[in-house]
Amino acid sequence: MSIERVAIIGLGLLGGSVGLACREHASQIVTSGYDADPAVRARAAERGLVGQVCDTMAEAVADADLVILCVPVGAMAGVAYDMAAHLPAGVIVSDVGSSKQSVVDDLAAALPGVTVIPAHPVAGTEQSGPDAGFASLFANRWCIITPPEGADQDAIDALSAFWAKLGSRIEIMNPQHHDLVLAVTSHIPHLIAFTIVGTASDLEEVTRGEVIKYSAGGFRDFTRIAASDPTMWRDVFLQNKAAVLEMLGRFTEDLTAMQRAIRSGDGDALFELFARTRAIRRSIIEQGQDDAKPDFGRGH
Amino acid sequence: MSIERVAIIGLGLLGGSVGLACREHASQIVTSGYDADPAVRARAAERGLVGQVCDTMAEAVADADLVILCVPVGAMAGVAYDMAAHLPAGVIVSDVGSSKQSVVDDLAAALPGVTVIPAHPVAGTEQSGPDAGFASLFANRWCIITPPEGADQDAIDALSAFWAKLGSRIEIMNPQHHDLVLAVTSHIPHLIAFTIVGTASDLEEVTRGEVIKYSAGGFRDFTRIAASDPTMWRDVFLQNKAAVLEMLGRFTEDLTAMQRAIRSGDGDALFELFARTRAIRRSIIEQGQDDAKPDFGRGH
Repeated sequence: MSIERVAIIGLGLLGGSVGLACREHASQIVTSGYDADPAVRARAAERGLVGQVCDTMAEAVADADLVILCVPVGAMAGVAYDMAAHLPAGVIVSDVGSSKQSVVDDLAAALPGVTVIPAHPVAGTEQSGPDAGFASLFANRWCIITPPEGADQDAIDALSAFWAKLGSRIEIMNPQHHDLVLAVTSHIPHLIAFTIVGTASDLEEVTRGEVIKYSAGGFRDFTRIAASDPTMWRDVFLQNKAAVLEMLGRFTEDLTAMQRAIRSGDGDALFELFARTRAIRRSIIEQGQDDAKPDFGRGH
Repeated sequence: MSIERVAIIGLGLLGGSVGLACREHASQIVTSGYDADPAVRARAAERGLVGQVCDTMAEAVADADLVILCVPVGAMAGVAYDMAAHLPAGVIVSDVGSSKQSVVDDLAAALPGVTVIPAHPVAGTEQSGPDAGFASLFANRWCIITPPEGADQDAIDALSAFWAKLGSRIEIMNPQHHDLVLAVTSHIPHLIAFTIVGTASDLEEVTRGEVIKYSAGGFRDFTRIAASDPTMWRDVFLQNKAAVLEMLGRFTEDLTAMQRAIRSGDGDALFELFARTRAIRRSIIEQGQDDAKPDFGRGH
């Protein structure tokens, strides 16, 4: 089984990057695309995000081997129901959503009898929309494929080969474990960032102007993540509720312990934590998952 | 009053950067330096962080117009007592510490009769030590000067002019207000980052290897801050306890509200917060306090 025709539904950061990465790294693949927003479709056509931008979802998926849903996870079920009648025989339906158990369940319910192999390329930026995508977004990033139980191995292999062509490293994982892992490596960091930026905006004693001026002390790092797409992230928290609440519980326990250490002046407890968190960054850099340059290589 | 001879005590990231910035932007200023660690002194001499690396603090400060303490805020008092007998008449003593009320108090107690004008250049990276400094660290960053009540205006002006030469923008603020502002723009972000990296390292259900592999989902941003110098940060939390606990209380209230919204499935509350946090990043970029490039301009 080989993937030759890919339909991309949703032409924002992720969908656009998949299209551009196909053009750059797998130019023999024919791509079509659809977005519910006509303005996005127009811009997608101008940028050439896919070979053909279609005016209906039916047209986009008509002769695809692989359909990739690049929409917020809360919109997956609706989109899948809408496309169900138009899917060609033998197609693989996949996605790029950040929570996976809910997508596995939603797509199975909406698309009985269809080969559904959900996936999550762990890559992105804080930007969104049809201007945000670029061809190298997936280079050296992990794509986690979460096949439902009993999924067709040929389809899993074909999807893996597709993502590998776009530059991704591939991991197969069960959806529940994915959701727990991403809760800690992505969802909780985003929730914390959104929250602290909100807290800082709402203070009375410290003005918003002061928060902005002195943001280079650390705060500005959080504002990048907190500039991410609001709809996408609302859906992630609603769809991955159990794992997010579990990991949030662990974090707040640990934060309470730090609060107590500060209140009681327990410098040793603070130092012990602060000294061991360096090692994990070293490993992230060694494994090519971040830039070794100080300050993310920001221009100085 | 004009500053012509500067002594830098502590030759790590900040001290080294002050020395290199003097050489680059104010080459008429003569710099001397001292560090308690002989290995740091040796490396500082090799890199030429200051014009003369001295083997004693007494020698370094002997004929300085301005002495800048670039040591962790918990070490300020001890260093100030040690130098007190060696300070020349008319010298200004300043520092670069991240908490200011404690430094104002500690230096006043240790250096009666000396002109003390504490300051905090809001700039840094996650790296530390004599190899970490660079000349442009302060360019376009704010330097907050926190004179004690009744401080000599000529000394304030001279210190302001000095930091402006190194590329800083200058703000005068009272020390207590500084500590509240920096608690939210710097100290709480660091505490949160250290804590979530610790939480992620200690999980049983998710391995450390998984945390590292999938860190590009957001977590890796926090590991940069959590790689900062442990001694420096332990001291900040101990010295700025009241403001940190106050701001931490605000943050945890807001986080609890988000937790409740997730538990009850209140998508509107999540969306409302996520949609308004974008504006603050836009302002930070407009005011030149961060890079406009997506993902901090990390190489893709």
